[in-house]
Amino acid sequence: MKNNSAPIGVFDSGIGGLTVVKHLIDALPNENIVYFGDTARVPYGSKSNDTVIEYSIQNAAFLMEFGVKAIVVACNTASSVAMESLREKFAIPVIGMIEPGAKYGLGYTSTNKIGVIGTRSTIGNNAYSKKIKEINSEVEVFEKACPLFVPFAEEGWIDHPATIAVAEEYLEPLKSAGIDTLILGCTHYPILRNVIQNVVGSTIKLVDSGIAASYSVVKELTEKDLLNTSNSPGTQLYYVSDVPTTFKFVASLFLGKDIYNVKKVETDYISSLFSINK
Amino acid sequence: MKNNSAPIGVFDSGIGGLTVVKHLIDALPNENIVYFGDTARVPYGSKSNDTVIEYSIQNAAFLMEFGVKAIVVACNTASSVAMESLREKFAIPVIGMIEPGAKYGLGYTSTNKIGVIGTRSTIGNNAYSKKIKEINSEVEVFEKACPLFVPFAEEGWIDHPATIAVAEEYLEPLKSAGIDTLILGCTHYPILRNVIQNVVGSTIKLVDSGIAASYSVVKELTEKDLLNTSNSPGTQLYYVSDVPTTFKFVASLFLGKDIYNVKKVETDYISSLFSINK
Repeated sequence: MKNNSAPIGVFDSGIGGLTVVKHLIDALPNENIVYFGDTARVPYGSKSNDTVIEYSIQNAAFLMEFGVKAIVVACNTASSVAMESLREKFAIPVIGMIEPGAKYGLGYTSTNKIGVIGTRSTIGNNAYSKKIKEINSEVEVFEKACPLFVPFAEEGWIDHPATIAVAEEYLEPLKSAGIDTLILGCTHYPILRNVIQNVVGSTIKLVDSGIAASYSVVKELTEKDLLNTSNSPGTQLYYVSDVPTTFKFVASLFLGKDIYNVKKVETDYISSLFSINK
Repeated sequence: MKNNSAPIGVFDSGIGGLTVVKHLIDALPNENIVYFGDTARVPYGSKSNDTVIEYSIQNAAFLMEFGVKAIVVACNTASSVAMESLREKFAIPVIGMIEPGAKYGLGYTSTNKIGVIGTRSTIGNNAYSKKIKEINSEVEVFEKACPLFVPFAEEGWIDHPATIAVAEEYLEPLKSAGIDTLILGCTHYPILRNVIQNVVGSTIKLVDSGIAASYSVVKELTEKDLLNTSNSPGTQLYYVSDVPTTFKFVASLFLGKDIYNVKKVETDYISSLFSINK
């Protein structure tokens, strides 16, 4: 049964997905959103694929309890390993970060050289390069894991000399490779967008995977006739599995506005929803 | 019943505790050690106190299954919030990082100005300053959370210009305060010891909480007549709740030698051992 007023479910390993929620609200202001940030089990980027798949299914199962009409995997790491399992388990549209980001990157490149930065897991799984080459095998993809970008974004050091030094170290090989497009393959990286742009130079186009994914959500809901027909602003509900001490500061940095009404869900409950070993 | 040949149990939120194991092996080469690193749920430093207490009890309960004669909490964050709960629950010696580190710091200072660096949680709980002032209320304690040190240590950037820039930013207020002793209140920080020493200058004494704790373990096992009387080298068993892709690299950096025979335990099993909500 179609339920156009049902919320869109969004999950992430933590708070990075709030940069995606920000763009979703911009793109679809009438939609209701339920967000789950798995802050008790963050980060996913350094965990094994099996663990990330298991957690992703649990998170999606939690969102299903709100009767969501679509699920956005607002986490590149989860998107890089868990999309197939999620689509097998859940009979509603599931939108990840990789395919939209890859398509956007392809739309911008004219040199056919695309750079991708992300967590160790996203890069180690070659998630973006596989998807890009699947669409256009002539494009060269240069990937680089940037594990220190997440802690710098969460520390809020968005223009510190140390941040610049780290960005220079990570991005130099991509610049040398002659890329003209750089996919920010982690939902934290838009926070460091200015530093990244300054280090790679203004001629390189940055692709925010969260913006790309938001357009995909619009497209998919439109095609399936699932858009909310209400004219009122949508509501947002935020759930997390832990409330870290710096949550309010980081969440407002990522969402671009203050966050209210955050509820905690017990990890025991989330992990009871699905186990690969059961 | 006393069992001198029983192993010593050591747990940490992840792999930082391996710097403590390294010193334990140096101090007590005949002792058997069972290590549990909660790599699936790392980091603890940004989690709430309740969550850290719950995880700590679960980890200790897992070690109890090996019949351990003592438990070393090789994690400053867990030591700063969970010692009381652990000692209530378990009737064997439980040795944390804070008290030994605080006592060592007091043993070195002549200006009565001690600096402490650690995770947000350890510093936010004022774990070291409370303990130091409990022993000597005239000592001034200057604390600073250094959340970026852990990812830099795990990235292995032990002398990168960015690491130095981060250390300068964090440590400047402590230098200005005139400390003569600096407690490394996180088991990851000894990896960055050289950078930290260079930035604060050679006249400031660095205290490694893991070394301090190892001496406490020797003292406690001796007093309770629990030392292993065997003359053979002890064995080490390593358990983790997840095996991250970079585990081998980081583990050998932290332990100071290659690590073999690492076994994975399911997080479901660990979390089934105790729940605050039950």
